[in-house]
Amino acid sequence: MAPVTNGRVIFKEVPKGYPEAGKTMVYEEQTIDPETIALKPGEWLVKVLVLSVDPYMRGRMREPSKKSYNDPYTIGEPIENYGVGLVLRSENPKFKAGDYCQGVMDYAHYAICHKTDKFYVIENKPENLPWTTYVGAAGMPGETAYYAWKEYAFAKKGEVAFVSSGAGAVGSLVIQLAKRDGLKVIASAGTEDKVQYMKKIGADVVFNYKTTDTKEVLEKEGPIDVYWDNVGGETLEAAIGTANQHARFIECGMISGYNGQFYPVKNLMMIIQKELRINGFIVNSLRDKYVAEFQAAMPKLLASGEINFREDVTRGLENGDEAVVSVQKGTNVAKAVIVVADQ
Amino acid sequence: MAPVTNGRVIFKEVPKGYPEAGKTMVYEEQTIDPETIALKPGEWLVKVLVLSVDPYMRGRMREPSKKSYNDPYTIGEPIENYGVGLVLRSENPKFKAGDYCQGVMDYAHYAICHKTDKFYVIENKPENLPWTTYVGAAGMPGETAYYAWKEYAFAKKGEVAFVSSGAGAVGSLVIQLAKRDGLKVIASAGTEDKVQYMKKIGADVVFNYKTTDTKEVLEKEGPIDVYWDNVGGETLEAAIGTANQHARFIECGMISGYNGQFYPVKNLMMIIQKELRINGFIVNSLRDKYVAEFQAAMPKLLASGEINFREDVTRGLENGDEAVVSVQKGTNVAKAVIVVADQ
Repeated sequence: MAPVTNGRVIFKEVPKGYPEAGKTMVYEEQTIDPETIALKPGEWLVKVLVLSVDPYMRGRMREPSKKSYNDPYTIGEPIENYGVGLVLRSENPKFKAGDYCQGVMDYAHYAICHKTDKFYVIENKPENLPWTTYVGAAGMPGETAYYAWKEYAFAKKGEVAFVSSGAGAVGSLVIQLAKRDGLKVIASAGTEDKVQYMKKIGADVVFNYKTTDTKEVLEKEGPIDVYWDNVGGETLEAAIGTANQHARFIECGMISGYNGQFYPVKNLMMIIQKELRINGFIVNSLRDKYVAEFQAAMPKLLASGEINFREDVTRGLENGDEAVVSVQKGTNVAKAVIVVADQ
Repeated sequence: MAPVTNGRVIFKEVPKGYPEAGKTMVYEEQTIDPETIALKPGEWLVKVLVLSVDPYMRGRMREPSKKSYNDPYTIGEPIENYGVGLVLRSENPKFKAGDYCQGVMDYAHYAICHKTDKFYVIENKPENLPWTTYVGAAGMPGETAYYAWKEYAFAKKGEVAFVSSGAGAVGSLVIQLAKRDGLKVIASAGTEDKVQYMKKIGADVVFNYKTTDTKEVLEKEGPIDVYWDNVGGETLEAAIGTANQHARFIECGMISGYNGQFYPVKNLMMIIQKELRINGFIVNSLRDKYVAEFQAAMPKLLASGEINFREDVTRGLENGDEAVVSVQKGTNVAKAVIVVADQ
């Protein structure tokens, strides 16, 4: 194999508000030789096939001095996220050339991986799902929805659930999990296309939060027993205000506040009055408990169509920075993925 | 028994900010004859001996149109709260003349009671505690501390707990329960006297939040694993900011916001990042699960001195309105009680 071009999306600077393509992150190329590039013991080299684009990535674009549950991106190095790669060479006994592996890898055409415990080999048999699925409904966003719904919803048939960002990678699965548990589901999103999709996958009450008042919908269709929060801020306030006694709040994301905006939630006292149970969580903490069950169940449900999913595919790593920005602004139309190479 | 004077503290108007003695509530007298006053089936008449004064009472001084977990006080009628009374006459088989009963009764010298399921007869043998104890450490505030600590703290030896309003009726018991479970306890209050008391009952780190920055103390002495919140607002924000991963927040009260003030908590996103578990609760919901255990354990612990308590006693119902205001403003020095009659 001759030297090849290795494109990479490099983190350039910490953004103040929304990240900017070509400024916060820049696509750059280098030349490498996959046959000779040095691998240390425990490392393996992958050809990156697909990469995920997720809202939480904004949190990694921070000053290194700020502590959080994940590491900040490093200025001058590629950004990274969940992906699927074909193993080309390996100095790690867990992975061999020809394997397909899933884990957090560089936004690059070729990536050297080393975090053994964060990667797994994908069998994908007999389902034969597209690789993109393994960074979406069968990957981290799928795990997020599945694990936390199981752990924190305490769902009872006939109850009412509200899901914000209900057309997103996580929200669309939560809607379907809630319906499978027999709940009435209210779901919100920010475009008419997304609203239609939420209806298609089974949500009972759907609305566009940009044109319809969230509080009015919840007052009419609630009170709500489970709130799956992807957005925080004013929507969280509306959910608290219309929550039933003993409602459960699953705090998955607060994208409304990720890019510098701040909305002061004014009714926190109702946490006491309504005896709310609020759980923040990170998918990694629940993985050990549910991963075996998830991997046995979810690919089958997706392959059979019992659970529906859709993806917003960006082709070409050179468009990766735009895809990242799009997810922060909510202009993607479904679970955002990048197809870096076809094989 | 001849006709007697029956003083009552009447609710006059919904306050905008802090309630005012003589305006929000007014002490008024009427004449009644305890021997002949009519009792319907199921009712019983008590001579009120002691009454409790609690922060949550502010929530009942609201417009009746506002829903909450408890009933609003009625304009023109006495305010009510937990008390202990001597039964004079009874048309209820659960209570007989000569019994001492505990339950929510009118701020009055004589009260007609009827909510059988909310009252119980106090044996007080062999402990022979003062009646005031049964509206304090052995009553509702004691239940509040005991039940929610058992249910929501998930306390592990060596962890760090933070208790706000740590010299109050509930907080002072929480400090001692946390110490009994082997935790390091940080506690805050608003006067030097209260700070000294928290030290006396075993808190490891005590401070006056009016003269010392809460966030600085918690940054130095934390991270905190359990936060018992009695105040909300800026203190809640500081606790979230210095919480450990997987910390538990027990939301018992938010007195900083009861009287019209609003502080916007700006770091709610950390609920996710730190995987916080936040439980709002109302003592009544936990009673069935823990009341037998509590009644068997707490009076003994108080009588033996293993758990310390202190009270701020107001003598005379005519001072009841002032006592209620004092608790809202935090000028009481300990669990506030009113001794209405000595026997």
